[in-house]
Amino acid sequence: MPMSWEMLYAERAHTMKNSEIREFFQLTEQPDVISFAGGFPSPDCFPREFIAEALQKLVLEEGAAALQYGPTEGNWELRRYLAEKMSLEGASCSPENILITNGSQQGLDLIGKVLLNPGDRVIVEEPGYVGGLGAFNNYQAAILPVAVDGKGLCTDLLEKELHSLRNQGKSVKLAYTVPNFQNPTGVTLSLERRRHLLELAGKYNFSIAEDNPYGELCFEGGQLPSLKTLDTEGRVIYLGSFSKTFIPGIRVGWIGAERCLVEKIAAAKQATDLCSNTLGQHLVEHFTRRQSINRHTRRLSTYYRGKRDLMISRMKEHFPAGVNWTVPRGGFFIWVTFPAHINSRDLLLKALEKKRVAYVDGGGFFVNGSGKNTARFSYSEASEEEIREGIARLGELFAEEFGGTPTKGKDRVAAEGR
Amino acid sequence: MPMSWEMLYAERAHTMKNSEIREFFQLTEQPDVISFAGGFPSPDCFPREFIAEALQKLVLEEGAAALQYGPTEGNWELRRYLAEKMSLEGASCSPENILITNGSQQGLDLIGKVLLNPGDRVIVEEPGYVGGLGAFNNYQAAILPVAVDGKGLCTDLLEKELHSLRNQGKSVKLAYTVPNFQNPTGVTLSLERRRHLLELAGKYNFSIAEDNPYGELCFEGGQLPSLKTLDTEGRVIYLGSFSKTFIPGIRVGWIGAERCLVEKIAAAKQATDLCSNTLGQHLVEHFTRRQSINRHTRRLSTYYRGKRDLMISRMKEHFPAGVNWTVPRGGFFIWVTFPAHINSRDLLLKALEKKRVAYVDGGGFFVNGSGKNTARFSYSEASEEEIREGIARLGELFAEEFGGTPTKGKDRVAAEGR
Repeated sequence: MPMSWEMLYAERAHTMKNSEIREFFQLTEQPDVISFAGGFPSPDCFPREFIAEALQKLVLEEGAAALQYGPTEGNWELRRYLAEKMSLEGASCSPENILITNGSQQGLDLIGKVLLNPGDRVIVEEPGYVGGLGAFNNYQAAILPVAVDGKGLCTDLLEKELHSLRNQGKSVKLAYTVPNFQNPTGVTLSLERRRHLLELAGKYNFSIAEDNPYGELCFEGGQLPSLKTLDTEGRVIYLGSFSKTFIPGIRVGWIGAERCLVEKIAAAKQATDLCSNTLGQHLVEHFTRRQSINRHTRRLSTYYRGKRDLMISRMKEHFPAGVNWTVPRGGFFIWVTFPAHINSRDLLLKALEKKRVAYVDGGGFFVNGSGKNTARFSYSEASEEEIREGIARLGELFAEEFGGTPTKGKDRVAAEGR
Repeated sequence: MPMSWEMLYAERAHTMKNSEIREFFQLTEQPDVISFAGGFPSPDCFPREFIAEALQKLVLEEGAAALQYGPTEGNWELRRYLAEKMSLEGASCSPENILITNGSQQGLDLIGKVLLNPGDRVIVEEPGYVGGLGAFNNYQAAILPVAVDGKGLCTDLLEKELHSLRNQGKSVKLAYTVPNFQNPTGVTLSLERRRHLLELAGKYNFSIAEDNPYGELCFEGGQLPSLKTLDTEGRVIYLGSFSKTFIPGIRVGWIGAERCLVEKIAAAKQATDLCSNTLGQHLVEHFTRRQSINRHTRRLSTYYRGKRDLMISRMKEHFPAGVNWTVPRGGFFIWVTFPAHINSRDLLLKALEKKRVAYVDGGGFFVNGSGKNTARFSYSEASEEEIREGIARLGELFAEEFGGTPTKGKDRVAAEGR
């Protein structure tokens, strides 16, 4: 008799499902669709000549080590480089504070594995990164969303929530934030709020997962100090990634945290996948050794800034009154808000059908079912020509759908209040 | 105040610790030590010229896809190849039945994540692969060890255990086996017992994780049909790996299972690490496309058979009476049994100190604290010269320690009974 798998699934598996956003991408991948949906880095930015040459060298000259199993914690030289990098940025680190992961997504998973019992409370940003939600949901965490506005996570709302929980005898174990050029909103957590968040973490005794895949793709205004840098109590688990600043296909990210926690996470990782891929780690280490990485990051920032500027200028020119957006100072994403009565998903289906243009409707980034009139636009992958054409077409659709005429160049940054 | 992480750990984290065997490897890695401890493939077997050329081609000619994020389930062409391969072996599969993992260790982790609630019962082999134990322990499974003898897992003992559990109203969710050239014993599950195990799985309604990293490194006697091939009810989750037949450093393994389960595991994997590394998947796919993989596997089998033959012949020549061993028909491992009063760990420390030779003492492969007089010897990494010299030195030590003289060529295969 064929086996009935449904009956064997663990409790935690009942909520596991493919993210709607990823499912939806299949729609956007038809060749005649201009897509602002995906959040992938542009393949134009992959330094292919460098990579081909480096791999050749690694395999032929350092072959055994780069192709063999490696330490669970990761390549020692790469850990040393990352410790130096983080120390230079002000977060004093030694190689023992660093653990290499399969992209920062695995970092989130391992944090969940080591810290979260079913029902443990985790603060997330709303709207926020769906992959973070997914990782913590897999460990049956109780997710508590806190709103994000133009200055990032609203720490005053968080404080109220924490206070109210304490009055009920309840606590929070972890807060998760993408402080720089957040996915999906593009906003950056202000310095004041960074300090406030750390203060709250101390007062209410929780840990912070600081996920920073976009921070180095900073277009203007300079980078704010990381939470890890400001942390004097060892509460912050920093998650870094080479997916946006180098290439994603090798899955190399890292965790920077207190040594005891890194050791615990390493024990968890050992039973999870033994080690991350060594060839990718050696490739990244080679890239950093050549000191070309900073130059490369500056080039990428210039490249993505040009695309952001183009998309924003086209939005100003073509989007009718009533449509607002954020202007990110870095990263990949612009957050668009339509008039309150507009359902962004319905609008998206029309955009796909009538104009062959795609974005991501914003509802999926909210836990509580709100955000129906919002959308995430990514400028990272589309070509300049696609950005010009796609935004103009959407402008036409929006004018048809909810009237108004383009305001021709007026700056309409989304309200920073909430 | 510095944070106290201990208090934040999840319950499941309290048992997570670095495997003793891996910790111990640091001792064996001193340059003057001849080591039979590690279970890594020999770097002599890495086809470096092929890999260098293939990577060059992939990065320069197919660069975007091989360096970008990929589908969570894995590269479609590779999934298709693996489905064809498994179908040819008799386990009818389509690409939708295949999911690519970061080595088969991640497959074990994802099975645990999707199937195991705390306290769910999992049958493991004793002695058995410590990585399997670790993966299931991380999900707080109740581990039930069942003995292995010369014909693999003792399914008659398993049947008694299942019967007794049923009488107590208890059930088992999963049985985990390495049926071919098992780690650590080198033994192979007989065809009769394969059928018996499947029969028991049907009768007592549990699933089977069939972990087969060594099966293709078969020296003689041909490969037995996999459990997956014999499975008519969709109960078997097959775990394959390219770590031993190609290279481990790219972390490419796969799961072959019922489609509904593959979809559930893909949803779990999405929140675990988004996708496995694409460059490694493309490299493997390129290797299979060139159809050089079967030729390569035959070369590897010849290579490792030569090493096994050498180690066995040296054992016959140098090990005193009272020391017995298995003769594996493939894979990497020989299982050695010392006289009952001998503590294999104490002996190992002497071997390291006096003779500068290392193996792994067997106790760590047992759940119940037994196996004190056993050891795992691996011939995969040591050179021929090291095997000759290392076994001779150990023979001297053993003679000094528990007397007896080498029996010069007498065949002393470990008793197949228990």
